[in-house]
Amino acid sequence: MIKVGIVGGTGYTGVELLRLLARHPQVRVEAITSRSEAGLAVSELYPNLRGHYDELRFSEPDPARLAACDAVFFATPHGVAHALAGDLLARGTRVIDLSADFRLRDAEEWAQWYGQPHGAPELLDEAVYGLPETNRERIRTARLVAVPGCYPTAVQLGLLPLLESGSIDPGRVIADCKSGVTGAGRGAKIPSLLAEASESMKSYGASGHRHLPEIRQGLGDAAGGPVELTFVPHLTPMIRGIHATLYGQLGDDAGDLQALFERRFADEPFVDVMPAGSHPETRSVKGANMCRLAVHRPGGGNTVVVLSVIDNLVKGASGQAVHNLNLMFGFDETAGLDAPAMLP
Amino acid sequence: MIKVGIVGGTGYTGVELLRLLARHPQVRVEAITSRSEAGLAVSELYPNLRGHYDELRFSEPDPARLAACDAVFFATPHGVAHALAGDLLARGTRVIDLSADFRLRDAEEWAQWYGQPHGAPELLDEAVYGLPETNRERIRTARLVAVPGCYPTAVQLGLLPLLESGSIDPGRVIADCKSGVTGAGRGAKIPSLLAEASESMKSYGASGHRHLPEIRQGLGDAAGGPVELTFVPHLTPMIRGIHATLYGQLGDDAGDLQALFERRFADEPFVDVMPAGSHPETRSVKGANMCRLAVHRPGGGNTVVVLSVIDNLVKGASGQAVHNLNLMFGFDETAGLDAPAMLP
Amino acid sequence: MIKVGIVGGTGYTGVELLRLLARHPQVRVEAITSRSEAGLAVSELYPNLRGHYDELRFSEPDPARLAACDAVFFATPHGVAHALAGDLLARGTRVIDLSADFRLRDAEEWAQWYGQPHGAPELLDEAVYGLPETNRERIRTARLVAVPGCYPTAVQLGLLPLLESGSIDPGRVIADCKSGVTGAGRGAKIPSLLAEASESMKSYGASGHRHLPEIRQGLGDAAGGPVELTFVPHLTPMIRGIHATLYGQLGDDAGDLQALFERRFADEPFVDVMPAGSHPETRSVKGANMCRLAVHRPGGGNTVVVLSVIDNLVKGASGQAVHNLNLMFGFDETAGLDAPAMLP
Amino acid sequence: MIKVGIVGGTGYTGVELLRLLARHPQVRVEAITSRSEAGLAVSELYPNLRGHYDELRFSEPDPARLAACDAVFFATPHGVAHALAGDLLARGTRVIDLSADFRLRDAEEWAQWYGQPHGAPELLDEAVYGLPETNRERIRTARLVAVPGCYPTAVQLGLLPLLESGSIDPGRVIADCKSGVTGAGRGAKIPSLLAEASESMKSYGASGHRHLPEIRQGLGDAAGGPVELTFVPHLTPMIRGIHATLYGQLGDDAGDLQALFERRFADEPFVDVMPAGSHPETRSVKGANMCRLAVHRPGGGNTVVVLSVIDNLVKGASGQAVHNLNLMFGFDETAGLDAPAMLP
Repeated sequence: MIKVGIVGGTGYTGVELLRLLARHPQVRVEAITSRSEAGLAVSELYPNLRGHYDELRFSEPDPARLAACDAVFFATPHGVAHALAGDLLARGTRVIDLSADFRLRDAEEWAQWYGQPHGAPELLDEAVYGLPETNRERIRTARLVAVPGCYPTAVQLGLLPLLESGSIDPGRVIADCKSGVTGAGRGAKIPSLLAEASESMKSYGASGHRHLPEIRQGLGDAAGGPVELTFVPHLTPMIRGIHATLYGQLGDDAGDLQALFERRFADEPFVDVMPAGSHPETRSVKGANMCRLAVHRPGGGNTVVVLSVIDNLVKGASGQAVHNLNLMFGFDETAGLDAPAMLP
Repeated sequence: MIKVGIVGGTGYTGVELLRLLARHPQVRVEAITSRSEAGLAVSELYPNLRGHYDELRFSEPDPARLAACDAVFFATPHGVAHALAGDLLARGTRVIDLSADFRLRDAEEWAQWYGQPHGAPELLDEAVYGLPETNRERIRTARLVAVPGCYPTAVQLGLLPLLESGSIDPGRVIADCKSGVTGAGRGAKIPSLLAEASESMKSYGASGHRHLPEIRQGLGDAAGGPVELTFVPHLTPMIRGIHATLYGQLGDDAGDLQALFERRFADEPFVDVMPAGSHPETRSVKGANMCRLAVHRPGGGNTVVVLSVIDNLVKGASGQAVHNLNLMFGFDETAGLDAPAMLP
Repeated sequence: MIKVGIVGGTGYTGVELLRLLARHPQVRVEAITSRSEAGLAVSELYPNLRGHYDELRFSEPDPARLAACDAVFFATPHGVAHALAGDLLARGTRVIDLSADFRLRDAEEWAQWYGQPHGAPELLDEAVYGLPETNRERIRTARLVAVPGCYPTAVQLGLLPLLESGSIDPGRVIADCKSGVTGAGRGAKIPSLLAEASESMKSYGASGHRHLPEIRQGLGDAAGGPVELTFVPHLTPMIRGIHATLYGQLGDDAGDLQALFERRFADEPFVDVMPAGSHPETRSVKGANMCRLAVHRPGGGNTVVVLSVIDNLVKGASGQAVHNLNLMFGFDETAGLDAPAMLP
Repeated sequence: MIKVGIVGGTGYTGVELLRLLARHPQVRVEAITSRSEAGLAVSELYPNLRGHYDELRFSEPDPARLAACDAVFFATPHGVAHALAGDLLARGTRVIDLSADFRLRDAEEWAQWYGQPHGAPELLDEAVYGLPETNRERIRTARLVAVPGCYPTAVQLGLLPLLESGSIDPGRVIADCKSGVTGAGRGAKIPSLLAEASESMKSYGASGHRHLPEIRQGLGDAAGGPVELTFVPHLTPMIRGIHATLYGQLGDDAGDLQALFERRFADEPFVDVMPAGSHPETRSVKGANMCRLAVHRPGGGNTVVVLSVIDNLVKGASGQAVHNLNLMFGFDETAGLDAPAMLP
């Protein structure tokens, strides 16, 4: 049984961590912090947790109390982990950061996209990008893990087999992504109101989105060189779920793509390559730490279409964070992550 | 480890049973039947179950195979359990019926509301109404359990304390209920289309609904005499959830209603009396076997308002069925039912 | 052709006024004010209006410019019309207030519910409650009209025939109301986020809501004496629409209720008494200035159930405001209000 | 005042025609046919029309009665117009077909995609493809118009300027399209249930969809040669709306794309080129006959992204049909189509 803390627990990734950890046999949530809600019982803010965590209250971030944990999750806006991670690591507490603070290896690039200097460049060398399907071994021994973003998870898993095998032209890749509104967080913003976002579909950031450099970095690693990616995210009128529709240009010698995908993910507990001809639905992973993939080659032409779905709050955030925890502490990879998705 | 069968597994209560039982430590699903889908893998119809039940396929209802189970759930339209339950009981298999077949004690009344003669009146004497909060001891030893309907569960739990204590006038009770669309089942009906049911609110059956006699029967038992109930169900544009808003007329000597409710359900694992002044949300029980209640007395007048929320597919159907199973086989009451609700 | 101004045009009632007035043959929108958005083109905030009002921009509230209008609508939070209405009236401009400022005749009661002193008690005598179905003649000559709230409109229209005719006991009336989220306005509040309000149902203000005194006042006028009303509003996961389910206790001599309703509203262009046995859907009035009613008497007992649906932004706000304008200026009552509802 | 008939009026395009024509100053709906609902008042099936068309009832398709109309709309499944159009044309009635029957010029290709022989190849020569933005003059004199499909309208309008000007490589065009559920019609199909389609996103027909040949034909005309199109439609949890996200590869000499689009559609009443940097929302055209476009060039690279939104039932079907009618009969092009979209 290990003790974990959660910094910034009032957002959707925070409550999702609590929902998943409630069923984790080897984890006890010792502290959860929130400046705005300090003193409030978590079950008051999140009544779904009544009967679970009844003693747990949000507290001011107390370094000593957090350092007493074996691991600390950051479910915070960018910048917060920069300020606190170093001290926790120095005290021997391992850090699992769900924010964007340590996802980019290049502090300069981070500064460009986030409009402020990187707050902890000295930690970048040891930060491990927490995508188990590419970094499993490094994660096992990591002290600091940067959990991938939701779009980057769905897009990378869908393109890895094609780029690693050199099956598609890295100079022309398109990711058309559709996300539920929880991707925008729990902030009180007018565009996120039901009256604004429901019964409508729109894209955003078509000319540049903060997840773009993260995806490019990951795809570049897979391709062994730069990847030209066009990434257009869309806001979809649903609570959870990401549907990434990925387009690539095949070379003339493209082989059996279905087999390629099945081989690549044969041993992955949280990637499901569906039968040829499938069209995965986001609801098939609602609440579950799972990415379902399908590969299509319309008209047998040289364009490959990959369909990739995840729950942005689970495989796209909190579930993947728990998966990383399981690897870091030698637990069964599926501990706390074995429940089926909820359908309907 | 016991073996269970599910008859009529293609509907929403069937897939919900599979979702819940996937995490039940003492239950193995041995057979699931469907005439229409016989031969199909359950995970083909319900991709959320991929990776669970991978060997399980829908089969034609085979009495011998079902009789080899310790218990059989009926997740069927009315009439089916009438035809099959007796034979299973004779072979020593216990029956948990999620349909309406054995909910009413009076075969005549059943025939009136369902427009056909009751198919197994000889079993009515031993059928136990499976509302654990009123029938726990009888359920433990029952061979045949009739799982309450979704509306009846939400309404009875909200009114039991008031009627048992004689706090309200049994001659004037109103239940204004709002249900998500899964309450109408998985049938291909035009009024259930997203294009018809979304962005709209409507009532139905205002002049009489099949759940009315079941609710009246249960409330009558609690009150020790007939209860005059006006019951108006409404179709709400959401997938899951029932919100029952209950109105009663208090006598002059009504005491502390909050205390009354807290006492009544103090030992109940699946009824949560919320703090005074609360307004429970259906999402706070989404996917969970839980009923959350709040009691209000507007303006301190003589009208009491009880707010009762459940997930119609869990506490209103499959979860309550598993609760009954746990009682019948001496398992921990919360086995397979301990996951928090999913929010958001 | 008259000139109208709109104060506080950035909210949902403001944009709905613009949508309706775009097709009004005798009205030209001369000015629309917003402190927060002054200078912005209305079509930038509301792209549905591109191609309409292309020259119209939000402006600072300028008394002179507003006074140059024949009529000014207030689509503002409470308190604003208190401050500005008197001056406009003095300059000969007629005022149609969609806020709560002049709905209650009793300044004391207003102060209690709104937590601040009434800002213009001297205007209460001449303020006319703008429910055309009860006040048509007074509205024609009014200088200051208080447009009824959304809940009060749906509830009063459903109960008027019963109370005016003395058919029900005024001491025991229940209004269980369900509203879409636009009823809460366009404010950036967490409970109004799609991620919070979608896929869920909840009540609020069960112990007292600001619309209660307004409804009581109107029902009291109809009954010729005090009415004991229990009013419980619910938040429903849809953008527009109110469904009021109304319960009353009939006397022994209750006659033909269907005929009673049809007679009462025979000449009303915006009240539709549906055939006996109907269950009106809110979508049947989406975007239209219409209230559809149905009357039920479950089991032929002494409880009457009235179903009343409106679009909270149209018959519950902006459409009714335009109806009042039409009466005040002698236009055809249906001018600008003759489009069918949008279904699906 | 002309007389029109509607064949197959029970579907969503039928009721939308009635909603739009209710406000058309020069059109009277003389007959509306439905085999399944013959005898039923249209306002019984569609209560939003109560108070409009009160005398109009669905009737059996009667050739003589239809031939007495100046024009007949077909809002039918494919195959029906094949059977009836010829006779109507022979009797001097003009035909506006909303189905797919006359959209493809090649009867063979039609037969392949629809799995049955083309029923009226002799009419293909005079059938005019009813996209006013490309065929206005031919439509004015047409006797038989094939109204474009919803996807084809959104995709063609978004790509016309680029293909006509040779700005993009016709060998590599991608259309990632998202549609509300009304695109699937009013059929009682399980995948269209709210419980199945809500809170989820999925693609379909990734390997080939019936709208593909129609889009290819139109784009080929614009490009003056074959266009290689990858078209992936997605089902989105909303009632109305299509969002087409279009990707093309620019040549090195691509000029000012914003200006290109503004020029191309400068005189089009129903195409709105939004300011550079815009992200159109489908709700901005809800209920309106409008296509809103925005052009992006992410990172200034050689990939152009066009965002195109329409209401699939209006500009994607019934509104465009009325626009064609207006052109065919010399009415103002915007007659009956001048109402702003409904937002929120």
